[in-house]
Amino acid sequence: MRFFSDNAAAAHPAVLEAFAEANRLDTAYDGDAWSRRLDGVFSGLFGTDVRALWVTSGTAANCIALAAMVPPYGGVLCHREAHINVDEAGAPEFFTGGAKLLLVDGPGAKVTPEILAEARGRIRADVHQVQPSAVSITNATEYGLTYSPEETAAVGEFARSHGLGFHLDGARFANAVASLDVPVSELTWKAGVDALSFGFVKNGGFSAEALILFKPELASAAERLRKRSGHLLSKGRYLAAQLLAMVEDDVWLDNARHANDAARRLAEAAPGRLVHPVEANEVFVRLTAEEAASLRAQGFDFYDWGVGEARLVTSWNQDLGDVDRLAAAIREL
Amino acid sequence: MRFFSDNAAAAHPAVLEAFAEANRLDTAYDGDAWSRRLDGVFSGLFGTDVRALWVTSGTAANCIALAAMVPPYGGVLCHREAHINVDEAGAPEFFTGGAKLLLVDGPGAKVTPEILAEARGRIRADVHQVQPSAVSITNATEYGLTYSPEETAAVGEFARSHGLGFHLDGARFANAVASLDVPVSELTWKAGVDALSFGFVKNGGFSAEALILFKPELASAAERLRKRSGHLLSKGRYLAAQLLAMVEDDVWLDNARHANDAARRLAEAAPGRLVHPVEANEVFVRLTAEEAASLRAQGFDFYDWGVGEARLVTSWNQDLGDVDRLAAAIREL
Amino acid sequence: MRFFSDNAAAAHPAVLEAFAEANRLDTAYDGDAWSRRLDGVFSGLFGTDVRALWVTSGTAANCIALAAMVPPYGGVLCHREAHINVDEAGAPEFFTGGAKLLLVDGPGAKVTPEILAEARGRIRADVHQVQPSAVSITNATEYGLTYSPEETAAVGEFARSHGLGFHLDGARFANAVASLDVPVSELTWKAGVDALSFGFVKNGGFSAEALILFKPELASAAERLRKRSGHLLSKGRYLAAQLLAMVEDDVWLDNARHANDAARRLAEAAPGRLVHPVEANEVFVRLTAEEAASLRAQGFDFYDWGVGEARLVTSWNQDLGDVDRLAAAIREL
Amino acid sequence: MRFFSDNAAAAHPAVLEAFAEANRLDTAYDGDAWSRRLDGVFSGLFGTDVRALWVTSGTAANCIALAAMVPPYGGVLCHREAHINVDEAGAPEFFTGGAKLLLVDGPGAKVTPEILAEARGRIRADVHQVQPSAVSITNATEYGLTYSPEETAAVGEFARSHGLGFHLDGARFANAVASLDVPVSELTWKAGVDALSFGFVKNGGFSAEALILFKPELASAAERLRKRSGHLLSKGRYLAAQLLAMVEDDVWLDNARHANDAARRLAEAAPGRLVHPVEANEVFVRLTAEEAASLRAQGFDFYDWGVGEARLVTSWNQDLGDVDRLAAAIREL
Repeated sequence: MRFFSDNAAAAHPAVLEAFAEANRLDTAYDGDAWSRRLDGVFSGLFGTDVRALWVTSGTAANCIALAAMVPPYGGVLCHREAHINVDEAGAPEFFTGGAKLLLVDGPGAKVTPEILAEARGRIRADVHQVQPSAVSITNATEYGLTYSPEETAAVGEFARSHGLGFHLDGARFANAVASLDVPVSELTWKAGVDALSFGFVKNGGFSAEALILFKPELASAAERLRKRSGHLLSKGRYLAAQLLAMVEDDVWLDNARHANDAARRLAEAAPGRLVHPVEANEVFVRLTAEEAASLRAQGFDFYDWGVGEARLVTSWNQDLGDVDRLAAAIREL
Repeated sequence: MRFFSDNAAAAHPAVLEAFAEANRLDTAYDGDAWSRRLDGVFSGLFGTDVRALWVTSGTAANCIALAAMVPPYGGVLCHREAHINVDEAGAPEFFTGGAKLLLVDGPGAKVTPEILAEARGRIRADVHQVQPSAVSITNATEYGLTYSPEETAAVGEFARSHGLGFHLDGARFANAVASLDVPVSELTWKAGVDALSFGFVKNGGFSAEALILFKPELASAAERLRKRSGHLLSKGRYLAAQLLAMVEDDVWLDNARHANDAARRLAEAAPGRLVHPVEANEVFVRLTAEEAASLRAQGFDFYDWGVGEARLVTSWNQDLGDVDRLAAAIREL
Repeated sequence: MRFFSDNAAAAHPAVLEAFAEANRLDTAYDGDAWSRRLDGVFSGLFGTDVRALWVTSGTAANCIALAAMVPPYGGVLCHREAHINVDEAGAPEFFTGGAKLLLVDGPGAKVTPEILAEARGRIRADVHQVQPSAVSITNATEYGLTYSPEETAAVGEFARSHGLGFHLDGARFANAVASLDVPVSELTWKAGVDALSFGFVKNGGFSAEALILFKPELASAAERLRKRSGHLLSKGRYLAAQLLAMVEDDVWLDNARHANDAARRLAEAAPGRLVHPVEANEVFVRLTAEEAASLRAQGFDFYDWGVGEARLVTSWNQDLGDVDRLAAAIREL
Repeated sequence: MRFFSDNAAAAHPAVLEAFAEANRLDTAYDGDAWSRRLDGVFSGLFGTDVRALWVTSGTAANCIALAAMVPPYGGVLCHREAHINVDEAGAPEFFTGGAKLLLVDGPGAKVTPEILAEARGRIRADVHQVQPSAVSITNATEYGLTYSPEETAAVGEFARSHGLGFHLDGARFANAVASLDVPVSELTWKAGVDALSFGFVKNGGFSAEALILFKPELASAAERLRKRSGHLLSKGRYLAAQLLAMVEDDVWLDNARHANDAARRLAEAAPGRLVHPVEANEVFVRLTAEEAASLRAQGFDFYDWGVGEARLVTSWNQDLGDVDRLAAAIREL
């Protein structure tokens, strides 16, 4: 019973079906019938004109977006625990040609305009220090917290007023949307977001993420960076088909709701143990080494998260029986 | 009836089947059961210990290999018409951090030790000029010519004697092997090749290429570069499964033979029109504008290649009826 | 009697004097009194508002200019024998983050709009090929030829009409101006030049070159790149003082005239031997190995330039007696 | 009376004299008589074979050293307040091709093996996180503290035992040596240092710093990086001559002693105000806004350093009368 992560689950049947349909000759790269529908379908979803590019990983989506916004001598304001800083092996520095991540702190890996303003205020506006060119946040955060439309818009207003790009790492954007139950527009372009890494792999896809550009002027750079980084696959239709299958019947939202629901069940079993509020599909709990060992002995797998804490992540297809068994086991600790 | 390229065909049924089997929970990234078999299976195929990494594009395979061999201030000797120079949007410069492609000429996009030595001889061995760190060749070449084991070994000996890495772009390596009918070892490590971009997408896969490292000391850099460039997909098993399906029952070789056979049929129909010998699955023919128009009017699609020439590429699943129809149409021009 | 190059001569007395005057405490970096005069003095010289930055080498001037104009995924149209391609160790690729030099040919290392248009025409306007973002020419060229105002303006019009930046490598700009005897404005901004590497080191300075920006919007990037590449010296006043000394009493022009005159004397001694017209301070002559050896035996030092050719370069302070001796020796061969 | 920094003072007479002597024709780049003496002179100074390269700025010295040690996908353990992190505009990221500075804390901008080990211990040894390739420390630190031979050797042992390069930013190395009164060998190669940025500009030079390589195998990369970054000046003899003048008669040490002595006098005037021990030529004192204003009204110039603190820096030629006046003024606050 695996609660390691949502990044290794099987793909949703609709995705596989779409994939099989795409298994026929069509134009290479993104000239095929599936790829050519992406802009339209995502524009419909977001209620505004967007450019939507498939890529094969969240790292690629994040870093292509950042490199399209940030010059090599620029900087990106982000949380110290952001995935782009911690778990992407320096990919942002690589894609941007050496831009600097300008790190801030904040509970639950969330940032606020106040935190950002404080960090920016410490940067002298001279040529000796790297100046920020963009802000990047993650929704839901690396600790499973969400940014509401208001919170997102406040960051967006900070970015706008300082002439910064605004990137949203949405590896678990679906979970945030499902949790907040608000229109996607309010978490993105209406809140000032310029580019969204819209994650599907953790939510039922297998190899396709969407880079959504709300500023069309970013598209040219992004398309060149996608090619230049080896992400313009020749048989792109297999990626586009995955995305379309996820979006067209709200599969992405249903999947995220399932995962969130599973996390909520775990959270309700451990009210006194929660390290962070549970607002998406990740549950961080305090567990002694003995308690963790006891759960593992009962067949539950998960990561320790520092000393005395553990991370439980639920997937789009997490077996709810397993979830309830884990919830019960936690209650009995 | 499409003869544009082999990079847009459907995937082979064995690949799809393996893919479906991989559709279950396993460890993320390359920790899954499929990925962990790659080294062994490819070591068996090549008859020596190799490291085999999946990536999603030939550009990624080529450029990760080059960046693992070449420092940012180094150079890569390659043909002016090499894919890495012409059609990868500066990806080698990006992955290497600004290394320089040092271009040479030669008929059919082939290089020889003599050509390479001449080019290297023109480079002053001082700090003002970029020094070569590696040689890269393509087999089969961008014009469908092959390097025999002897030709490859001659380039390998040049590389070895000058302390250069040796990279082989094998986007159509399968076609070269099928055409030459020699052991893969003789076209690679026995000939001095350090790293091979082993192409599967053009030959029946959909999104997985293999980067084969014959020098294990390149693996650490290559693995980091794969992650750093966004190519370490979290559900890597779907890529590994494709490669295994292609290799395990010689699907790769059968597919390449089919494509080569189709090309041979076209070549035999146009002996006086051939721009290059046809040694793999690409046929470059001289066609007047009227002739090209006539063929297109009969339903045959292909690319013009400069003025008065056209490129015909055959796929692993090219309909041989179509091939014979095109052959007949060419004969009748 | 050295005719190797103009890049190793002593500095002009006025430069040394200015240098000594700068030897007192002032604000660091470019906040000092000397540096703050540069924009004004060079704006006066060029007859338009410019930004003028000191740097310590022509490579730095060239590459900061290019990196301010060209994104990492862009390209620079330039001559195959341009210094930036041949003798800067990949510095353009380094400063730009991996942009590609898109090489053209042409006699005497000169390019024309026709040559550039032909090269650009061969580049497919898709994401697979690097698109040009700028043109760079050298005046006087690496072979000592000049671009007239009309020739420069023709390249400028090409750049403008294709949306490209226009960089002028003026390592020997002074020699070109002295030779053509035209206002500097006509060789630069009136001809569409966006950025000029204005060389002083070869012409009587010792460690200061000027990067002249005719488009003020390039200044912010250029200033950051200067710092980021380690070229923002803390005691910049020593560099600024050199430039001011060279410009304020037309020292730069007098020096260039002297060097050009010396070259002309050599050219007149070897009319049948000239490989290129002599329009600045470089003389390329055909010499057999025996002839070269004979000259060297008489005490004349110079570089061979390929087989059967030699390069003679004259400096701002070349002894005219030596020049006449060399001229006589050539006549007697 | 300026106590802003030591980076804007005039040059020492011996330096100017040497400079004037270098003002004659010699071989370009580093082939001249002065440059060719550097290895020998610095090898003598350090008591071991070193390679000594001139560069024009501390940023260049630091970043060439780091880029010679650290691959683009590597990391550099350093203090959060290190000059390379705070005040070099991202130059380390630029020179290395995107390596990451891995930041640690510690009082006075000093690091210890314990601090480094703790930071390294938090980095998972997988491909998702940037692995350290080098350690960089500054002696004297950005707060004017010194590392003793033992402290340096302890860091060196940490580096050695973890396979890391060891870089020493010695912008004020002379001040550290003068303060500690130990052989330079004990602060460098005997303590495991691989590369030293030996600062002279802050100590009486005007445009020459020395990059000292204790590992000869770093020289090839460093020389190429120097050229590639535009730091291989054609008239290098003017830089070499400065370094030789500083080293040959212990000018560097005398100058540093003077600056340190001046700082000590200030420190003795403000025992209760010191933020850090004063071990070199920087004095950080607690001053209220009123006190700072009072000093400025008396003609003393200096930087505020955050709120309620100020930085006083003394130069090699600081007027001791001024120093005593400032000391008296502080006492009277």
